[in-house]
Amino acid sequence: MSDDQRLTVTDRTRHRRLREQGSTARADLDAVLRAGFVCHLGVVTDGVPMVVPTVYGTDGDTLYLHGSVASRSLRADPAAVVCVTVTHVDGLVLSRSLFEHGVNYRSALVYGVPRRVTAGDDAAELLHGLRVLSEQSAPGQWDYARRPNAKELAATTLLALPLTEASVKIRTGPPEDADSPDGALGLWAGVLPLTTVWGAPEPDPALPPGHPVPAHIAAREATGLS
Amino acid sequence: MSDDQRLTVTDRTRHRRLREQGSTARADLDAVLRAGFVCHLGVVTDGVPMVVPTVYGTDGDTLYLHGSVASRSLRADPAAVVCVTVTHVDGLVLSRSLFEHGVNYRSALVYGVPRRVTAGDDAAELLHGLRVLSEQSAPGQWDYARRPNAKELAATTLLALPLTEASVKIRTGPPEDADSPDGALGLWAGVLPLTTVWGAPEPDPALPPGHPVPAHIAAREATGLS
Repeated sequence: MSDDQRLTVTDRTRHRRLREQGSTARADLDAVLRAGFVCHLGVVTDGVPMVVPTVYGTDGDTLYLHGSVASRSLRADPAAVVCVTVTHVDGLVLSRSLFEHGVNYRSALVYGVPRRVTAGDDAAELLHGLRVLSEQSAPGQWDYARRPNAKELAATTLLALPLTEASVKIRTGPPEDADSPDGALGLWAGVLPLTTVWGAPEPDPALPPGHPVPAHIAAREATGLS
Repeated sequence: MSDDQRLTVTDRTRHRRLREQGSTARADLDAVLRAGFVCHLGVVTDGVPMVVPTVYGTDGDTLYLHGSVASRSLRADPAAVVCVTVTHVDGLVLSRSLFEHGVNYRSALVYGVPRRVTAGDDAAELLHGLRVLSEQSAPGQWDYARRPNAKELAATTLLALPLTEASVKIRTGPPEDADSPDGALGLWAGVLPLTTVWGAPEPDPALPPGHPVPAHIAAREATGLS
């Protein structure tokens, strides 16, 4: 994709509120999606929304997620549109007035009809999608841990969602009420940043003492989700 | 609420998958909800789910969130059920096999028909709800920053959701494949924890240099979301 590619705006993805926070840059969408590995999947079952957290991964124009999380609603309506939302909370915007308080965040919504990927229909894509999912959250594990065998693959369904209908919102920077009458109140204002950081690996107590931590895992300690 | 109170299980909140991770303890629900301040709200618009991140706060049996995020779908159907999901990602479960990889997390789903709280109908509850919202994310700011005035309150709608129909899932602890044939592979396995931590307050560049950071804000640096 070229760096300046724009997302096509649909009735669902048009920014109605806080327009200044909306982005239609495909690069922004990719950056938000690549910075995380847990999304919130929204499906409709009997007219009621259900929002469940689940692991995802992206590769080019496709977002992969596990099919089991939406199995009931997908059985009921295989052509139903789902919504996948990825959110990173970057900090609190502490303004002079409570009305102007807010959150610095990056968020992406992706709408689409998920395509089922199974071992029976497309074993190669299933394996590829599982690798994408795995490497997004745990880079290096695909080459280190035992890969799925035929029985495990047969028990697995992925959902593939095209990244064609999506919406991005980003809020960064300090409070915006310095120039309002509240600026004269003499109150502190600013941002309290929030960061998400990997900790020290915790070995399975069943491991023999002193079993070395693989370098690709140890190297993540104290690094953050970007 | 008594500590051992149980959530009533409904058809929507019954745990169908990974039953061992489900909890019906009201105390677990409260703990998950109190540990965060951003939820994912799911609503249905024209049959399509929409999942948006938004700030929330809880007080006793009520979850409050801003009404503007769901204004379009609520206008269309004021009696529609919404789903509010709160998720904390605590770490990656790095098992010997990729099939057994997973995530340590705490998650709560709350279903209900939100009640609108406005200045016209219930000014006292609106102010109370805004305080609950504010104090959950930014404790101390309600007494420090300028509180909402009449004009701001008139422009604000909160949604109040009862905590009566809810579902909690929690996964903690190490991988579970030590005793499987994969335990003999000699691979490292364990948990890579993920923590969310407040950083150093970033003053609004519009402030005069040296403006002291209030103690209730400064004290949060290096503390985590629990």
